[in-house]
Amino acid sequence: MRRYGIPANVENVLITSGSQQALDLIGKIMINPGDLILTERPTYLGALQAWRAYQADFVITPLDDDGIRCDHELEQALSAGPKFMYILPNFHNPAGVTLSLDRRRRLVEIAEHYGIPIIEDDPYGQLRFEGQHLPPLLVLDSQRLRETGNPQNNNGYFRSGNVIYLSTISKTLAPGLRLGWVVAPQDVIQRCIMAKQGMDLHTSSFVQMVTYEVVRDGFLDAHVRKIREVYRERRDFMLDMMSTHFPPEVRWTYPQGGLFLWVTLPEQLDATEPLKEAIQQRVAYVPGTAFFPQAGGHHSLRVNFSNASLQMIETGIQRLGVVFRDALQSSERKELVQAL
Amino acid sequence: MRRYGIPANVENVLITSGSQQALDLIGKIMINPGDLILTERPTYLGALQAWRAYQADFVITPLDDDGIRCDHELEQALSAGPKFMYILPNFHNPAGVTLSLDRRRRLVEIAEHYGIPIIEDDPYGQLRFEGQHLPPLLVLDSQRLRETGNPQNNNGYFRSGNVIYLSTISKTLAPGLRLGWVVAPQDVIQRCIMAKQGMDLHTSSFVQMVTYEVVRDGFLDAHVRKIREVYRERRDFMLDMMSTHFPPEVRWTYPQGGLFLWVTLPEQLDATEPLKEAIQQRVAYVPGTAFFPQAGGHHSLRVNFSNASLQMIETGIQRLGVVFRDALQSSERKELVQAL
Repeated sequence: MRRYGIPANVENVLITSGSQQALDLIGKIMINPGDLILTERPTYLGALQAWRAYQADFVITPLDDDGIRCDHELEQALSAGPKFMYILPNFHNPAGVTLSLDRRRRLVEIAEHYGIPIIEDDPYGQLRFEGQHLPPLLVLDSQRLRETGNPQNNNGYFRSGNVIYLSTISKTLAPGLRLGWVVAPQDVIQRCIMAKQGMDLHTSSFVQMVTYEVVRDGFLDAHVRKIREVYRERRDFMLDMMSTHFPPEVRWTYPQGGLFLWVTLPEQLDATEPLKEAIQQRVAYVPGTAFFPQAGGHHSLRVNFSNASLQMIETGIQRLGVVFRDALQSSERKELVQAL
Repeated sequence: MRRYGIPANVENVLITSGSQQALDLIGKIMINPGDLILTERPTYLGALQAWRAYQADFVITPLDDDGIRCDHELEQALSAGPKFMYILPNFHNPAGVTLSLDRRRRLVEIAEHYGIPIIEDDPYGQLRFEGQHLPPLLVLDSQRLRETGNPQNNNGYFRSGNVIYLSTISKTLAPGLRLGWVVAPQDVIQRCIMAKQGMDLHTSSFVQMVTYEVVRDGFLDAHVRKIREVYRERRDFMLDMMSTHFPPEVRWTYPQGGLFLWVTLPEQLDATEPLKEAIQQRVAYVPGTAFFPQAGGHHSLRVNFSNASLQMIETGIQRLGVVFRDALQSSERKELVQAL
């Protein structure tokens, strides 16, 4: 955990079969049918999929460029009594935004004030291309515990923290290994261990051994430095291509890291419509509605910039530009016909 | 699936993270709180652990030397309306018994008659040391479908079978890989795929590739032939040692394969009691109660013969013999004191 600056003992860590399993585990030990979960709007669709299986309901709080808004809407959502808050602090999937340091501090205070824990999902934290690394909520929560000076908090985060932190090697080394981890207070980890036994006994020890070898000889550090460079170049190039080829009515995010751009079409367009034509042209994206726990996001979509060559990015964005332009024109024609 | 004589298309198979995950998946798609599950008595404790998490209740049917008894007790249990029957046909864990061919045929008919599917859990089928391989319930169910001649059954097992079959490479190649599989009718597999996405996205593709390489070059076949020899020798030797060192009041099973022996102490002994002394002597076993969905099994225990050298088996059984003898004498003394 040194790599991530995270103050954890071995009793605070559980290796999982990817961080998707950590989401499932949290659902299993925490969610009863009908329980509320507070998420950002939009949020990671895999978390929705994991927790809907436990019949969770969702209460949502909007994001802006600094991450989840810590205003009256959040307080209102919290007073509905959610079981936990689900926060993606770095290079949000799908929205691309990063939670500011001020709001991180505020969120940790809010969690303590309301007694509502935070699930901090951080698969992309290592993939920062620019700007300064910000401390995880877990680290800030641990500092809070040290500073309160309450002798009950002698063991600090290890026993009584409010943050459950998830990460993975899927985005830094290889998604096909399926290796993630949970950091949490000891009693949470104990409950996760019991639940995980019934789920898959344990995460492949072969995968754990292979990963250990790759991490300890320094390969992973060098590899992360390299993919940061490669992904930054792809992000920059995709942003360039969008400026060149997308119609002026289309908007998109500028993420400081991660894998995704979030594109917003004009309100009157439904992103599932141009997708059909895009797929004909062999370009795919994820329509935004999948990331909204309740209704919304119909005119937004997520594109990935990390996995394609510059050549493919150019071709893909060019084709999407044509598809969006056609869709806009056709929707304008429809409006005109209706108006006549 | 050729290796197992199983008539399945690729649409009938899902790779899982060990067969423990298959048990969890089945719980997730089939069990609502309060649902009844029919199990053998005793049964595999990992299945109980997986399904208790979904708040299942259990209805049980006893085993004899030919596996689950297909008598009025089974019919009574079935008329309570369980969601499914859970059957371990080969070298039962923990009881060591194998389901006879007659009863396999009967069970498949019963499943059809009552409309209650069978979960056939077969981790040990390849580990037969002697006697003839018996067809899986899945194969018999598939034959039944072909023979009924109903044109609706044109697709046979692939669409409308009553058996969900589970297996794993944990017992033939390596448990640390965590690779298992489910064979089931297509619509069951579709539901499993959706549920598995929320659980861990997919089983490590790295593990799947490594396993494929090991299986396709014939190593696995040769390896299974070898471990059959090694395990048979260990079983035989452990049985010998039990005859030599255990008190005459103790009984045990003679399994034709697998990994386990099931030991029955005299009724008045609770197997958790001598376990404390056994562990002092650095010998461990699993007390029987863990394998009983409801009360029972207090004077039984499971021992493993596959994982220890002959030398260790000799030492271990010798020490257990002393521990059991002491426990018996002490319980007799107690009875005497009470009688006086």
